[in-house]
Amino acid sequence: MPIFDISIPISSSLIVWPGQDAVEMRQLFHLDRGDGATLTRFSMTAHTGTHLDAPAHFIRGGQTLDAVPLETLVGPALVVDTGTAEQITVPVLEGLHIPPGTERILFRTRNSREAVQIGLREFETGFAAIEADAARWLVERGARLVGVDYFSVAPWHDLDSTHHILLGAGVIALEGLMLRDVAPGAYQLVCLPLRLSGAEGAPCRAVLLAP
Amino acid sequence: MPIFDISIPISSSLIVWPGQDAVEMRQLFHLDRGDGATLTRFSMTAHTGTHLDAPAHFIRGGQTLDAVPLETLVGPALVVDTGTAEQITVPVLEGLHIPPGTERILFRTRNSREAVQIGLREFETGFAAIEADAARWLVERGARLVGVDYFSVAPWHDLDSTHHILLGAGVIALEGLMLRDVAPGAYQLVCLPLRLSGAEGAPCRAVLLAP
Repeated sequence: MPIFDISIPISSSLIVWPGQDAVEMRQLFHLDRGDGATLTRFSMTAHTGTHLDAPAHFIRGGQTLDAVPLETLVGPALVVDTGTAEQITVPVLEGLHIPPGTERILFRTRNSREAVQIGLREFETGFAAIEADAARWLVERGARLVGVDYFSVAPWHDLDSTHHILLGAGVIALEGLMLRDVAPGAYQLVCLPLRLSGAEGAPCRAVLLAP
Repeated sequence: MPIFDISIPISSSLIVWPGQDAVEMRQLFHLDRGDGATLTRFSMTAHTGTHLDAPAHFIRGGQTLDAVPLETLVGPALVVDTGTAEQITVPVLEGLHIPPGTERILFRTRNSREAVQIGLREFETGFAAIEADAARWLVERGARLVGVDYFSVAPWHDLDSTHHILLGAGVIALEGLMLRDVAPGAYQLVCLPLRLSGAEGAPCRAVLLAP
């Protein structure tokens, strides 16, 4: 069974959110320096690379990620392609013909094709993401998890609204996906975050399996 | 389908290897302090909590974890119980009647029942682990991944041999498992580490699914 890795590699050159410190990776010990073993220590925020946002990220008293059942993060998922759409809007969603009952939706947008690609470049503010009205549409149709191919489910011009709408409704956000090489369609998503106690999110490894 | 989480929660009070710094978790921003969002930054070694060792941890020029195919970390696994055995030795292995062709073996030992439990206590050097001759036995029988319920596949009195034998043969070590509440038997293991570039290991989230 093929396993599609949709997680971005983590290194000290990984793009981080503007204003945040870079990922640090330091080799405390190394066989090449005569040590008995090689040992890396690293430092990053819980929202580094491919990661999950739980309600507590934007909602006071909201659920932390370790309180979110793994059953939300593992199960059938639909990868949809929004083509050249500038942003994910209600008309764009309506045109995707997402089957009723789809609980996990991963958006492959122009980000996966353009200069806005997730990767070893500068942070780009012009990324495609989910507009507030589209976030409401997803909540109303019963989404439990939504995934995007840049570092935020919300567009740069309105970072708060989409986060508040999704997380306020208990919808988990999966951000920083590498979807370029994945064909649209139905898969099994397995998305496992570090089990950080009481944190508002966590980096994760996300894979797609054949449905 | 039930998902058995066999990963230990990560917090600043998690046991770490003697001599290493504790896990750090720091809230850079917090809604309760009037910030627009809550944001945690954390620091830990790649061998914190439930984690994987790749060959590069002990073998010069050995494979790093990001080079290990995910197919090794996902697939059928057998949970075996070694009862009151002091250590995992060849006679103990012989008595377990492990079917030929078993590629992933997770050992539930006395660690899961005694004071040596993985958890929020002091590091205990008296843990059960895999003796060198037992590691050779596992390699000879085609194991690809072995998991243990304390922080090392190797016993304290000989930390190098078992690591060298297993990792030198390309067998991946899955350490720091919480197996207390899991019955022995056949499962599907899904063990997904952070995608740390070029590192000799990584913390992971490990779960068992019904076979």
